[in-house]
Amino acid sequence: MNAEEFYARLKTHASSVEDELAILLKGSGSYGHLMDAMRYSALNGGKRMRPFLLMESAALFGVNYQASLQAAAALECVHCYSLVHDDLPAMDDDDMRRGKPTTHIAYDEATAILAGDGLLTFAFEILARETTHANASIRSDLVLQLAIAAGPSGMVGGQDRDLNAEHMNWGEAEICKMQAMKTGALIEFACQAGAILGGASEDEKLALVNFGKAIGQAFQLADDILDVTANAETMGKNTAKDGERGKGTLVGLYGVDQTREMAIDLVKQAQDSLLPFGNKADILNSAAHFVVERNH
Amino acid sequence: MNAEEFYARLKTHASSVEDELAILLKGSGSYGHLMDAMRYSALNGGKRMRPFLLMESAALFGVNYQASLQAAAALECVHCYSLVHDDLPAMDDDDMRRGKPTTHIAYDEATAILAGDGLLTFAFEILARETTHANASIRSDLVLQLAIAAGPSGMVGGQDRDLNAEHMNWGEAEICKMQAMKTGALIEFACQAGAILGGASEDEKLALVNFGKAIGQAFQLADDILDVTANAETMGKNTAKDGERGKGTLVGLYGVDQTREMAIDLVKQAQDSLLPFGNKADILNSAAHFVVERNH
Repeated sequence: MNAEEFYARLKTHASSVEDELAILLKGSGSYGHLMDAMRYSALNGGKRMRPFLLMESAALFGVNYQASLQAAAALECVHCYSLVHDDLPAMDDDDMRRGKPTTHIAYDEATAILAGDGLLTFAFEILARETTHANASIRSDLVLQLAIAAGPSGMVGGQDRDLNAEHMNWGEAEICKMQAMKTGALIEFACQAGAILGGASEDEKLALVNFGKAIGQAFQLADDILDVTANAETMGKNTAKDGERGKGTLVGLYGVDQTREMAIDLVKQAQDSLLPFGNKADILNSAAHFVVERNH
Repeated sequence: MNAEEFYARLKTHASSVEDELAILLKGSGSYGHLMDAMRYSALNGGKRMRPFLLMESAALFGVNYQASLQAAAALECVHCYSLVHDDLPAMDDDDMRRGKPTTHIAYDEATAILAGDGLLTFAFEILARETTHANASIRSDLVLQLAIAAGPSGMVGGQDRDLNAEHMNWGEAEICKMQAMKTGALIEFACQAGAILGGASEDEKLALVNFGKAIGQAFQLADDILDVTANAETMGKNTAKDGERGKGTLVGLYGVDQTREMAIDLVKQAQDSLLPFGNKADILNSAAHFVVERNH
């Protein structure tokens, strides 16, 4: 699969997820203020990398497209909520996101906090709906694993560590732990969720969890590299902020070249995890490759 | 059941919920910052009215005590998260809560936002755990109903309306709608959750939902009355803030005396909903009575 084919497929999924989110986040009733802010926060033309990984993992097991689309939309709600809260003045204080004013700039801080809360809560509503999956064990497992991935042992805990990491002179282990929680956990869930939806065996689940772990770390390293090499125009947000604040990244510890090598190793590791699936995993295989080759 | 007996029982449940939350929110690992803030936000000696209603509703159906305690703890995590976020400077800007500095004062704003996010996410983790209930349909239904109650059509949506209600000169219908979402939805869920855990019939569920609706509204009216009649010392927080800001309450529309009559009518309505349960519902019956008779 060449770059053109891969990006076309990524774009097709992104467009389906965008459409599904637009349907799910349709306002009802006359008072639409909060739902408008939630739509503004979620319908932003993002790459939808997490939904892509979920849907392609689910496709390995022939999962019904609508089921994986619902779960992918729920996952994206959690990702978007985390961006809205991370951008707040009390956190990373970012005014721009994907080339648009962040939610607290477009609305106000209170609305941004509530829109984030609303998206997080709504994600669990989507997963628990019978329309997502007829099997209650699968719904309940999706909720459990997403809550673990997004909660204090995962994403939220990682963001807390990140905020308190400034000037702490962390080593590789602490940086990797923080990143595995902050970014890795949700990417790992994306791959795991495909397996859960597909009623995969424990071995298959583990293979996809390992794939998610490795690709998640590679994704983060690529982000850290882009943060120092790309400019704001390409990224659609302010760059080189992490370095300015003295936050630890592996790029800061080892430089761009060595970090790029580590990322390439992780891609290899991710691809090895897919061996049990043979040719069926070609697309995920390509995803691992393009995650570190992207320029935004 | 007299006042002394009722308050003793409320206190016993509150103490069990406090203990359960302390176990559930036990920090693991060396980095405890976020979990500390979550514990600070949740272990605060609150009345635990919502857990009480959940556990007493569940008791109508002979639900296993540990199951109802877990669900009650999850519900209380959601209530506590909502207080932490509502107290933020961008929202109600409150420094004190139950006689203690609010979370953003005791820690900082970023930590308060994340502690709230963490408590909300963790609530869904608790509900989705097999240890809460062996039946996945029941777990999934609890998640669904809590997400609806706490989400944009419920609590979060109500808070958004409340923030934007200032100087809007709302009438009774708009005020009641906002309060039903902001406060009512979670109280209604408390009663509904007992029925879900107990595998109740649709009629029984409906009876408890109606009970929750009425008691939730009565609770809110009692709060609004206390807001103008009690002082900060009794309440452990700053009072009379709603009126100052020109927010609509029924007390503002109709005065204390008429609002008290409406609350008493709602108690009667709540108690009528319990008739199908006969004597078994004596405690919930008393709860409805004491909700409007409390002085804090």
